[in-house]
Amino acid sequence: MKTSSDKNIVEMFNSGNSSAKTLLVSDAFDMMRGGHLHELSLAYETFGKLNKEHNNVVVIFTGLSASSHVTSSSKNKSPGWWESMVGSKKAIDTDKYYVICINNLGSCFGSTSPVSVNSVTGKPYRLTFPELAVEDMANASHLLLEKLGVSTINILIGPSLGGMKALAYSIIHNKFVKNLILISTATQALPYAIALRSLQREVIRKDPLWNNGFYSYENPPLNGVRIARKIGMTSYRSASEWSQRFGRKKSADSKLNQNTFGIENTSFEYEIESYLEHQAVKFQNIFDANCYLYLSRAMDWFDVANHGESALDAISKTNIERALVLGVTTDILFPPQQQKEIAELLSLANTKVEYKELNCIQGHDSFLVDTDTFAKEVKGFISNL
Amino acid sequence: MKTSSDKNIVEMFNSGNSSAKTLLVSDAFDMMRGGHLHELSLAYETFGKLNKEHNNVVVIFTGLSASSHVTSSSKNKSPGWWESMVGSKKAIDTDKYYVICINNLGSCFGSTSPVSVNSVTGKPYRLTFPELAVEDMANASHLLLEKLGVSTINILIGPSLGGMKALAYSIIHNKFVKNLILISTATQALPYAIALRSLQREVIRKDPLWNNGFYSYENPPLNGVRIARKIGMTSYRSASEWSQRFGRKKSADSKLNQNTFGIENTSFEYEIESYLEHQAVKFQNIFDANCYLYLSRAMDWFDVANHGESALDAISKTNIERALVLGVTTDILFPPQQQKEIAELLSLANTKVEYKELNCIQGHDSFLVDTDTFAKEVKGFISNL
Repeated sequence: MKTSSDKNIVEMFNSGNSSAKTLLVSDAFDMMRGGHLHELSLAYETFGKLNKEHNNVVVIFTGLSASSHVTSSSKNKSPGWWESMVGSKKAIDTDKYYVICINNLGSCFGSTSPVSVNSVTGKPYRLTFPELAVEDMANASHLLLEKLGVSTINILIGPSLGGMKALAYSIIHNKFVKNLILISTATQALPYAIALRSLQREVIRKDPLWNNGFYSYENPPLNGVRIARKIGMTSYRSASEWSQRFGRKKSADSKLNQNTFGIENTSFEYEIESYLEHQAVKFQNIFDANCYLYLSRAMDWFDVANHGESALDAISKTNIERALVLGVTTDILFPPQQQKEIAELLSLANTKVEYKELNCIQGHDSFLVDTDTFAKEVKGFISNL
Repeated sequence: MKTSSDKNIVEMFNSGNSSAKTLLVSDAFDMMRGGHLHELSLAYETFGKLNKEHNNVVVIFTGLSASSHVTSSSKNKSPGWWESMVGSKKAIDTDKYYVICINNLGSCFGSTSPVSVNSVTGKPYRLTFPELAVEDMANASHLLLEKLGVSTINILIGPSLGGMKALAYSIIHNKFVKNLILISTATQALPYAIALRSLQREVIRKDPLWNNGFYSYENPPLNGVRIARKIGMTSYRSASEWSQRFGRKKSADSKLNQNTFGIENTSFEYEIESYLEHQAVKFQNIFDANCYLYLSRAMDWFDVANHGESALDAISKTNIERALVLGVTTDILFPPQQQKEIAELLSLANTKVEYKELNCIQGHDSFLVDTDTFAKEVKGFISNL
């Protein structure tokens, strides 16, 4: 069903990211698991300048929910999602490097996705969008980089889903990547992570407003997306951080709107509950439910071993000179053992690898929060290239 | 609204537990957070015989979702929830001890709860049930034990919520408990656990069939209860157990009923997803949604520090001779630090304490799964009393 707002959907999701450019990179794109896109556009942002030698390209692949707005610029002064990592004189120095941050294929922040209008039908794809794999995100990014005239990526960086995508890219487009920085990512999804994502998708699909993907964009399944985000957050942070930060503190509105049964209604009694609500409400208002389902499932499917006889065989297809692999002790979603495994595989594949397990308290999200600790490692690695 | 099935609700929930006796322990029961019950009944089961000296009483308090059927008996041969721990010649030896397992106040397995019919209105309490605290469960159990003629509990055992209840009991009824065994429990709920329980309750409350607690017992909010249980399970087990047990195995029905979008519909692609579904469907069919909300919130509210100037002051009110405190390395819901804290507090309160952190892989649920490891510790402790 076509609603009056269909044509404005991409613009709606893209608002607040005025600096993102969107490039039509292909009018024919085959997806890895079958299916085909008639138009493939990616949103991206660039910072700094490409040098004459074309050897200062840094490409940043993002996590599930980030846009291409990795840092502020003169065009868009609002802080980016990795503001203290990327910029002039920062660890990823935009005075030296030409930095390109690419929004994921399937994301609602400007790239072709389930909210995009299918040019053949004139309606948003919704669930007619083909099955999305991490490899499709990598391949789409490669087309964009070719259009931008990039022949070699000097440094490819990916945290979380971005790291899976960077691994896929380094295997499939192995002539293009020289150095690799992987943060809190994995060669394959493990069952605990699959369980948490499966649950998030189930909550969205069980929201009556989801309506098998044919929800109204004016009245989308906010409950489903909000609760999914909260489930996600229980795996993005750590119990010890929350104990330090919130303890058993009551929330400011704990006396308001509570029904007489002591079961919270619209307000929440404990600060941890209010915190989750606040963060998840922000998310429900900017992220499309169907996009979330597709991106989430893509992470479950990812397994580098699909690119060879084994994970090692697949990783051996990469051609990385040097790699930095960073994990976090308190990360329960992409636990440090998975980072160690990546480092060992790359090392066996003749890459010179530095591996560090950082003792941050913020779990999987540490790279977004304790950026100083990560910036120090990234800066050290880059300065030795 | 009174449905035709109202009078049979308790019987319905109690079916399959034919050996539980239900005793009306009081016709006036004041709840700690305010409110009042006109009738208070508790379901319980006993095993073994009270000796002449009345000094062989073992009381078992249960976790959130267990019934009083802790082990099989001649009256009910179906296996109990702690079958390999309790019985003739087992760690808790019913040849020697008179074992009483008490169903929690607020549970739908026979005790007075939100599914019970309020004798004044003739309708189930539902959300008119007063706010439920762990202390109410302890106080109700004390009334039952008095009715049963128990003057001293030789050994009080509580895992999880049962441990919170055992702590509350030992503080409030401090003349009655001699020895204490606490397993994977806590002196207070921490924010990570509160977050996970808050989410479970939100999922139930957002199920349209929940209907503010006034659901039809023929058509209850199964989606909400099922998904809540799955969220719970992600904290009851451990990521490492699931990696070993399921890895990335596909489920047997992974090719069935999947829609063309690769987003699971009624079937699940990975074995971990099918496992969660299977376990949670079993739960949704036996556990009442409102009871779940009340029991869940009671755990959030629990904090021994409410019984004194501090946690230590509260624990100092106990009068325990010897205690065994067991925690599990992989428990993320009641982490081993919380067990260590209990042991230290009891020790400061002049209890002779044995504390062990067990290296089981099954997380919080280890006491239910790796029973051999726990039975060895419990047996050792009891044999030295």
